[in-house]
Amino acid sequence: MPFKSLEELRSSCLDLPSGSDASAKAVAARQAILTKPQGSLGRLEEIAAWLARWQGRDMPRLEQVKVFVFAGNHGVTAQGVSAFPPEVTVQMVANFAGGGAAINQLARIAGAQLAVIPLDLEHPTGDFTTGTAMDDDAFLAAVSTGYHAVTEDTDLVCFGEMGIGNTTPAAAISAALFGGGAEKWTGRGTGVDDSGLRRKIAAIEAGLSRHAAALSDPLRVAASLGGRELAAILGGVLAARHRNVPVLLDGFVCTAAAAPLAELHAEGLAHTLAAHVSAEAGHRSLLEALGLAPLLDLGMRLGEGSGACLAVNVVRSALECHAGMASFAEAGVSQE
Amino acid sequence: MPFKSLEELRSSCLDLPSGSDASAKAVAARQAILTKPQGSLGRLEEIAAWLARWQGRDMPRLEQVKVFVFAGNHGVTAQGVSAFPPEVTVQMVANFAGGGAAINQLARIAGAQLAVIPLDLEHPTGDFTTGTAMDDDAFLAAVSTGYHAVTEDTDLVCFGEMGIGNTTPAAAISAALFGGGAEKWTGRGTGVDDSGLRRKIAAIEAGLSRHAAALSDPLRVAASLGGRELAAILGGVLAARHRNVPVLLDGFVCTAAAAPLAELHAEGLAHTLAAHVSAEAGHRSLLEALGLAPLLDLGMRLGEGSGACLAVNVVRSALECHAGMASFAEAGVSQE
Repeated sequence: MPFKSLEELRSSCLDLPSGSDASAKAVAARQAILTKPQGSLGRLEEIAAWLARWQGRDMPRLEQVKVFVFAGNHGVTAQGVSAFPPEVTVQMVANFAGGGAAINQLARIAGAQLAVIPLDLEHPTGDFTTGTAMDDDAFLAAVSTGYHAVTEDTDLVCFGEMGIGNTTPAAAISAALFGGGAEKWTGRGTGVDDSGLRRKIAAIEAGLSRHAAALSDPLRVAASLGGRELAAILGGVLAARHRNVPVLLDGFVCTAAAAPLAELHAEGLAHTLAAHVSAEAGHRSLLEALGLAPLLDLGMRLGEGSGACLAVNVVRSALECHAGMASFAEAGVSQE
Repeated sequence: MPFKSLEELRSSCLDLPSGSDASAKAVAARQAILTKPQGSLGRLEEIAAWLARWQGRDMPRLEQVKVFVFAGNHGVTAQGVSAFPPEVTVQMVANFAGGGAAINQLARIAGAQLAVIPLDLEHPTGDFTTGTAMDDDAFLAAVSTGYHAVTEDTDLVCFGEMGIGNTTPAAAISAALFGGGAEKWTGRGTGVDDSGLRRKIAAIEAGLSRHAAALSDPLRVAASLGGRELAAILGGVLAARHRNVPVLLDGFVCTAAAAPLAELHAEGLAHTLAAHVSAEAGHRSLLEALGLAPLLDLGMRLGEGSGACLAVNVVRSALECHAGMASFAEAGVSQE
């Protein structure tokens, strides 16, 4: 377990490499001579430079693309915050193993390796309305699992999650970090009705109130109000930074999971791109709060890493254009 | 040549099949039992139903995906409306043949066959500020070329274009069909400076004034103010409707090329999806005027079918999810 204390984890979050300026500049220089009007590939040009900076390669590559789906269970489901029963988490993990979920299809299309990592599903986190979701040991174990998962041979990593009830901790973390009250961040998740939505807001308000003393520390927020799969994503995003692996963030839960890193370090999420903006209430506001501009906006709200995986194709297209296009000189095309 | 007169073409535009309700309903019924919260794949669910309706297949397929890039030259470039010289059109056609353009990379990633069809490049259309761009014969020949290109064995077709100066006819057609004045529809294309932009607006105003008598007829608009590659796209979009092939529209020029069909028939573009919204001024307004909601918004403004090709991956992902996911019953997952 790489992190034995919250302070050790905090040090790792504060000591972040800043990426390769030289590689990002090499990409910009090549973009300027390719056979297209300047800037006409829009965000594809930006993506190529981003890959270069965070891989530290003048010519980025996308041979090893990985998708990690972390799964966790949540004590706060006792408050009636989800439209689905908690046993669906383990059932969906089996569905991932059998290849029947959306993420299986999307990972295949994206040319990405899928790994599903269940986190102690038989022991849900504590109900944060009555205690902490995780004590330090449970939190650090989950963060460490995510941290271990991301290896240096990876060229791009997507994070996703599965956990019935987990838009509730995501909203609680968002409210704790960025204020504005529970209602601003709370949506219908998998599809709760009006009374479920009211119970969800009430649970988040209770959690914020109970853990008021912890709210000034982003790591305490993640431990007290979060969940194992969110903690693992936080660890994975941190490891990716230290190991030169650019990250595609998925939807609301994934973004909320990574948000504490942005609160600890102003450039904490610079190596990530928001793959999409989810239809789940709160995600758009959270991306705005983090200064992240989503690549896709397709009304998706499934989680599992589905939005991130869909965006792999955009990233791959950006790189293929960058790597494969001819220059004006090579193609004999006149310039402006 | 399938169209021997404007009236024959008009009849074909007015007599459009309405797609398979039964296939669209079959998709919706299957979507409802797949292992995901209802509606949580957002536009991916809508895309699966759209493919089914316009292919007329309960289970759509994407084996034959084609990209047609039509190229044309424009007499209106004499008015100084482009940042690049007109010889770039033929140079870029050679670049397509050599595999060095953005669309070559994007088609490969999309698993699409690319065909580039140059249209009489050595004879630019007439300068529409001083005469018609095309007489009826030239217009019908270009429409017919596009119509012939799209065959029934195709599962999805993308249209793109190459033609130095062609955002000028695109803006002229948009202004002619939807009003609002030249300025509303005129952008910088490949990157004209301020004085180029003023020349472009002036040319479009001159064209609208000179061809005022033709503006009430969408086909006359396309002939008088358009270009060969735009006419070919119009023919291709029409053929796709008659031959059960769903269409991805690319950017401003492609959308303007197809717009006359929407003016002739209220459901004329129902078998198309707007693949993206371009950064070229006018495209967003044009999509709004046509009631089309773009799939992607990535600041691209290259043309060539680049945005359409990028969206093929989204369509493919939608179909793979639809076809490959397990049902709740198959996976043993509890429902709400």
